[in-house]
Amino acid sequence: MPTTHSSTDRIRAIDAWWRAANYLTVGQIYLLDDPLLERPLEPSDIKPRLLGHWGTSPALNLVYAHLNAVISETGRDVLYICGPGHGGPAMNANAWLEGTWNELYPDITPDTAGLQRFFRQFSFPGGIPSHAAPQTPGSINEGGELGYSLAHAYGAALDNPDLVVACVVGDGEAETGPLSASWQAHTFLDPVSDGAVLPILNLNGWKIANPTVLARIPDEDLQAYFRGLGYEPIVVDSGRVDHDPFAVHALFDGALRRALATIDDIQAAARAQAARAAAGEMAGAADLRPRWPMIVLRTPKGWTGPKVVDGQQVEGTFRAHQVPLPNVREDEGHRRQLEEWMRSYRPEELFDEDARPIGILDTIRPTGDTRMSASPHANGGRIRTALDRPGLERFGVPVGEPASATGTLGPWMAELIQRNPENFRLFGPDETISNKLDAVFDVTNRVWRARRAEGDEHMAARGRVIEVLSEHLLEGMLEGYVLSGRHGVFNTYEAFAHIVDSMVGQYAKWLESATDIDWRAPVSNLTILLSSHVWRQDHNGFSHQDPGFLDVVASKQQDLVRIKLPADANTLLAVAAHAMETTDRIEVIVAGKHPEPVFLSLEDAVAHADAGVGTWDWAGTEQQVGRVDVVLVSAGDVPTVETVAAADIIRKHAPDVGVRVVNVVDLLSIGDPRKHEHPISDERYDEVFLPGTPAVFAFHGYPTLVHQLTYRRHGHDDLHVHGFLEQGTTTSPFDMLIRNEMDRYALAHDALTRVADGSDRFADLLTALTDARTAARTFAYTNGEDHEAVSGWEFTGWPQDEPSDGGTGGDPGRGETEGAAPGA
Amino acid sequence: MPTTHSSTDRIRAIDAWWRAANYLTVGQIYLLDDPLLERPLEPSDIKPRLLGHWGTSPALNLVYAHLNAVISETGRDVLYICGPGHGGPAMNANAWLEGTWNELYPDITPDTAGLQRFFRQFSFPGGIPSHAAPQTPGSINEGGELGYSLAHAYGAALDNPDLVVACVVGDGEAETGPLSASWQAHTFLDPVSDGAVLPILNLNGWKIANPTVLARIPDEDLQAYFRGLGYEPIVVDSGRVDHDPFAVHALFDGALRRALATIDDIQAAARAQAARAAAGEMAGAADLRPRWPMIVLRTPKGWTGPKVVDGQQVEGTFRAHQVPLPNVREDEGHRRQLEEWMRSYRPEELFDEDARPIGILDTIRPTGDTRMSASPHANGGRIRTALDRPGLERFGVPVGEPASATGTLGPWMAELIQRNPENFRLFGPDETISNKLDAVFDVTNRVWRARRAEGDEHMAARGRVIEVLSEHLLEGMLEGYVLSGRHGVFNTYEAFAHIVDSMVGQYAKWLESATDIDWRAPVSNLTILLSSHVWRQDHNGFSHQDPGFLDVVASKQQDLVRIKLPADANTLLAVAAHAMETTDRIEVIVAGKHPEPVFLSLEDAVAHADAGVGTWDWAGTEQQVGRVDVVLVSAGDVPTVETVAAADIIRKHAPDVGVRVVNVVDLLSIGDPRKHEHPISDERYDEVFLPGTPAVFAFHGYPTLVHQLTYRRHGHDDLHVHGFLEQGTTTSPFDMLIRNEMDRYALAHDALTRVADGSDRFADLLTALTDARTAARTFAYTNGEDHEAVSGWEFTGWPQDEPSDGGTGGDPGRGETEGAAPGA
Repeated sequence: MPTTHSSTDRIRAIDAWWRAANYLTVGQIYLLDDPLLERPLEPSDIKPRLLGHWGTSPALNLVYAHLNAVISETGRDVLYICGPGHGGPAMNANAWLEGTWNELYPDITPDTAGLQRFFRQFSFPGGIPSHAAPQTPGSINEGGELGYSLAHAYGAALDNPDLVVACVVGDGEAETGPLSASWQAHTFLDPVSDGAVLPILNLNGWKIANPTVLARIPDEDLQAYFRGLGYEPIVVDSGRVDHDPFAVHALFDGALRRALATIDDIQAAARAQAARAAAGEMAGAADLRPRWPMIVLRTPKGWTGPKVVDGQQVEGTFRAHQVPLPNVREDEGHRRQLEEWMRSYRPEELFDEDARPIGILDTIRPTGDTRMSASPHANGGRIRTALDRPGLERFGVPVGEPASATGTLGPWMAELIQRNPENFRLFGPDETISNKLDAVFDVTNRVWRARRAEGDEHMAARGRVIEVLSEHLLEGMLEGYVLSGRHGVFNTYEAFAHIVDSMVGQYAKWLESATDIDWRAPVSNLTILLSSHVWRQDHNGFSHQDPGFLDVVASKQQDLVRIKLPADANTLLAVAAHAMETTDRIEVIVAGKHPEPVFLSLEDAVAHADAGVGTWDWAGTEQQVGRVDVVLVSAGDVPTVETVAAADIIRKHAPDVGVRVVNVVDLLSIGDPRKHEHPISDERYDEVFLPGTPAVFAFHGYPTLVHQLTYRRHGHDDLHVHGFLEQGTTTSPFDMLIRNEMDRYALAHDALTRVADGSDRFADLLTALTDARTAARTFAYTNGEDHEAVSGWEFTGWPQDEPSDGGTGGDPGRGETEGAAPGA
Repeated sequence: MPTTHSSTDRIRAIDAWWRAANYLTVGQIYLLDDPLLERPLEPSDIKPRLLGHWGTSPALNLVYAHLNAVISETGRDVLYICGPGHGGPAMNANAWLEGTWNELYPDITPDTAGLQRFFRQFSFPGGIPSHAAPQTPGSINEGGELGYSLAHAYGAALDNPDLVVACVVGDGEAETGPLSASWQAHTFLDPVSDGAVLPILNLNGWKIANPTVLARIPDEDLQAYFRGLGYEPIVVDSGRVDHDPFAVHALFDGALRRALATIDDIQAAARAQAARAAAGEMAGAADLRPRWPMIVLRTPKGWTGPKVVDGQQVEGTFRAHQVPLPNVREDEGHRRQLEEWMRSYRPEELFDEDARPIGILDTIRPTGDTRMSASPHANGGRIRTALDRPGLERFGVPVGEPASATGTLGPWMAELIQRNPENFRLFGPDETISNKLDAVFDVTNRVWRARRAEGDEHMAARGRVIEVLSEHLLEGMLEGYVLSGRHGVFNTYEAFAHIVDSMVGQYAKWLESATDIDWRAPVSNLTILLSSHVWRQDHNGFSHQDPGFLDVVASKQQDLVRIKLPADANTLLAVAAHAMETTDRIEVIVAGKHPEPVFLSLEDAVAHADAGVGTWDWAGTEQQVGRVDVVLVSAGDVPTVETVAAADIIRKHAPDVGVRVVNVVDLLSIGDPRKHEHPISDERYDEVFLPGTPAVFAFHGYPTLVHQLTYRRHGHDDLHVHGFLEQGTTTSPFDMLIRNEMDRYALAHDALTRVADGSDRFADLLTALTDARTAARTFAYTNGEDHEAVSGWEFTGWPQDEPSDGGTGGDPGRGETEGAAPGA
């Protein structure tokens, strides 16, 4: 490793950087004015509300300074993930020292006035947040909700073979479940084609008011824990050298260099072996589980801050968590203590009179994109390239024959993976096969860096599929992968998407902020494919039946999210391909894995998906009857099967009733166009839904979501929504529909009741429909399975001989459509 | 430890139990009839849909058999938590062997016909779920969503000093975040007054299609991992003895006895020392971190099942996960293989001709409540005793003076803890103090079984408060504590309640099922107190601003949940005390921690909370004006402050406008009384909300929730809801309100605009209100803080001199009410 100056000089420069960053951190928390302390601090120089977090910041600054020393010497590509997100002011401070603030924010000029504005804006109304956030240059980890730093780090390291992601994990965060699970992520990291993650656990010992578990267990246990997790822990304990900064710098410098050298060794060995194997030469077995380094950095909380305030110990205790001197504006003693504290960093050695960082700091300041605060990996849209997407033509399935939606998507996704071997990943909790995406294993494997054994299938030291039973880790890795400029899909069981509610919510907040920041370039969508959904749980019961993730997603800023409910396999192809193209959204797609009818040709499916909502004339009787008495709407695959079957029942048994069938693919398109950009216009809505006409809506999820979305639409009182009523268990598919009043008989019954409008016009038919439900249920309870031909209600096929007007729904099946009844 | 028969006899009995349980497990998955194989199996004896999970079951049965041997010998109190929830049929099987099914379910008679019904009901329409579920005797852990078994186990062990909770953790579950964090839970377990948890990690090696991480890392790492987590792992590997059952039994028998002896030693030492300390005798320092035992049990997945099916290895692979022989009804070969498999357990040695378990099984069958399937700890309502609740009188605060709501609750909760020293726990992620409940530390401490250090506050080897930065672990421990018959509160930051969305959703499902099961006695509420809410984030920003947990809760069966939004400190006392009394609900309470106005006397607050919704005549002008032109509704503390202030503005500046002020405490009381039992009647709703009159509703959360709840109420189109619009950052409190259009000026503006109804009646006033908003914002952006007296709009105090009609809201402040403006 080349050194450009002596070890002592290097340590001096690191210490100067550290002091400068600490100074700038404190300044942000406290100062409205006098940023260089050119005069004694007055009350008016102090912010009226002191908001921010000092405690974690000095350690974050220390790590930053040391990484800069390495980067400036070696040109290494390093990304900094700041787990202790309360260290927002620290991350800001380092970015300011690197000049990034000046470049990205015109009002933060590189002078004293700019520094004053830089201080003032922090945690100030109209300013920037107190945490590391989208506004923070170099950040891809929002610092509010803790637990995801390491998952983000591993996601960013994938397919970036020359990148080291330094991830500072706070000892508070380390208590969370998601973080605890994330340590195992190296099981999915390939030292040949991926970069490395260097976790740095900062044990400052305290949360807001409590000590932390990992800081209080015996050293022996701490080291055993990380060895058990597959790491080689390198411990730097400032207490061993009485917290002498230079001694700590020397220790940390050594630890960091040793860690990086170990990373280099692991990668060099793996890559040399891979090269030999690629050249056809003999090579020994790969080291499947290299022991990656990690650093344990034990430092006092709020190190270098006020030791004692008003007689109470602050440095090294929980009292250093936020603002160590609370009454600086009012209390002159506190104000003097603040000034002493800030002057202890010797700003005069660090900044010239125009507030420009001086001399010594330059020696370890990286330049251009090697500055961690300017890393393109932290502004992934800058380096993102579009996917090479296969055309859909070869993957569409014929209308009429039942097809598995996800099973149809699988081959397309396999080709997507083949065409984008370094740019796309599929994440899932052991469900790729069970969700019927197994075609991807024709072209790739699950990456698995642990022991392999006889009987393993589709496991290899390298692969584009990551499977682990932690939805948190998967979602976090996908976020890290996408934010650093790549593409991916997280597929999971619908019910268990709730596990990542909070992560997706925080990601929505990230997007909500990031899309308002002009220097942040658009990133790929966060695409979540939900299968094994509420209506088709076979081996599983009530716990697996929950469509409520859609409600959580819909509560976010709706222009940043999409909810797609493709009714069949071809429509899934259309919406999935679309999700792989657009940017800066959360795309949630719900699709079944069981064979279900295919209603639309691929061409029609693409048009229908583009329109978002469409009328399926072939399924209704509007044209024959010459008017619409009732609108049957559906959203979701199983609800659509039941809706089309209900329309068929009405056609056959009440042929004078005019039925319109409407299908909604893009759920949020029926939302409020006054509040959001995406929904269809009121005119279009009225054309399709015919306010004033009763509408029976069979919805995939909780009915309340439709009510919520259509609240300001005309005629929403005419919308009668069926959906999941929280009635579930391990039972037959048709019994699930009956329990939730979404079976074809219930839909037809509801529709005809509304058309009858109090008359006894359909009395016999309504009785017969009720009997049919009872018969279907009795059959299932007696025989343990559904029967597609409940006596008297044999299903004879989807309507197919009627004229079509070429609506967005297009033409129905022109082939064999019999036997496609659900529950078969 | 007394032994009643020789070691070999014991092993024989264990093996017989194991075989019997395995037989009954297989029978549930496959058989419709011929439960004792009295004739060759015919297709009609086989279920048409084969649904269930074999793979994990044999190990669950093995552990159950061994625990029974110990219980029957020693009378030990043991609770079995089954982490691999897919092992539902195994848990059912053991309960059947113990006779519990016969006792609890009259149709499961103790004969062949009952056994046939027992088999048939499993995963059958109209029957029972495939997972361990509320229907499963002895279960408090729903087996659908994985990750919570160990947290439930630790929750159940608290304050049950004689109980051992044996918790089988699957190696799939062990990959999840919540489970990974839960290993540290012994940090909060007191060996003197709490029971013990014995984790048994079953490494069967596979999930649905993938190997598991912990099964594939080196043994050395595995052991280091658990030692690092503070355990002494005892490994039983069936492979070491070639999977010979008797040898494995002997190994596991030894491991279990050793583990239990270690638990006894730890507890005996701690208790002896505590007794000496209590007697005032000298005692050495407590062993703060005893090394608890845990067992690693490595067995083949689907052990003793079909080895090879259709030429593919099944036993010991992922193919054993669900149904190893898939085509038994259709394929005679499979059917014969099933019969051989079932006969391999030698049922003729295990059951008499009436399907009664015979001889040898009796020797290790516990009796009465010592049967794990009949454990009162798993049906906690049976042993639950009501809390001794302090009266509220001494804790109420005077009307008028600002008070912190949670700060007012704290002393009441402290006395609650004092009065119920073994029956109530407070759980939180390091927020007890920051959420202003610190009064509890006058009477108790945080329990902390790790190193203590200078500067620690309120930490002790024993205490009623558990704090750890894992919402998952806390929520899971509370669930375990409540389901085993005790009481508790989980307090957390509002935004981060989303972290446990899925857990709360699963708990709701548990309640939804459990409340339909007559033998399950009611348990205490799961009470979640959310503070540090969306409207008052000071040190934190957008990531901490999310009221959406209410939406998640409201989507559950509403009669099982309550959402309480007390407007002031006294109302919080009322709703919190109520939550500590009722049963079988999820109670969510949102309350601020900052000083806010107190509107209601304690007496009025109790009446108001009971009513759920009430009119505050003193705050409006209905009586003076003689009519209602606009209704101002609020729900939540900050929205209520703004609403009352908006009413005050109208009173002063548009005195001829009749304003009614309505406050909603019990949010779901405005829901749909046609669907749920709890909401107020339509008549009462109409009386309060006056359909036809415009209503401006200031709501704590997302406005859509109010729209959803009132969808079927009269006049819901007249309801104009203000709430959180997903606009947030680190800013001043009043700026947060302005950003989301919920400040007093915006509310007054909206109300007057609707009263004006297109006329220019209030044109000047509306302009002035808009200017006031701008002025307030400008002040904050300029000065960094809010100002209570925006020029021209000085707030002069809550209305107090008007007559009151004694509505549920009662009389307003009779004292100094000035200076109570929010944002001050």
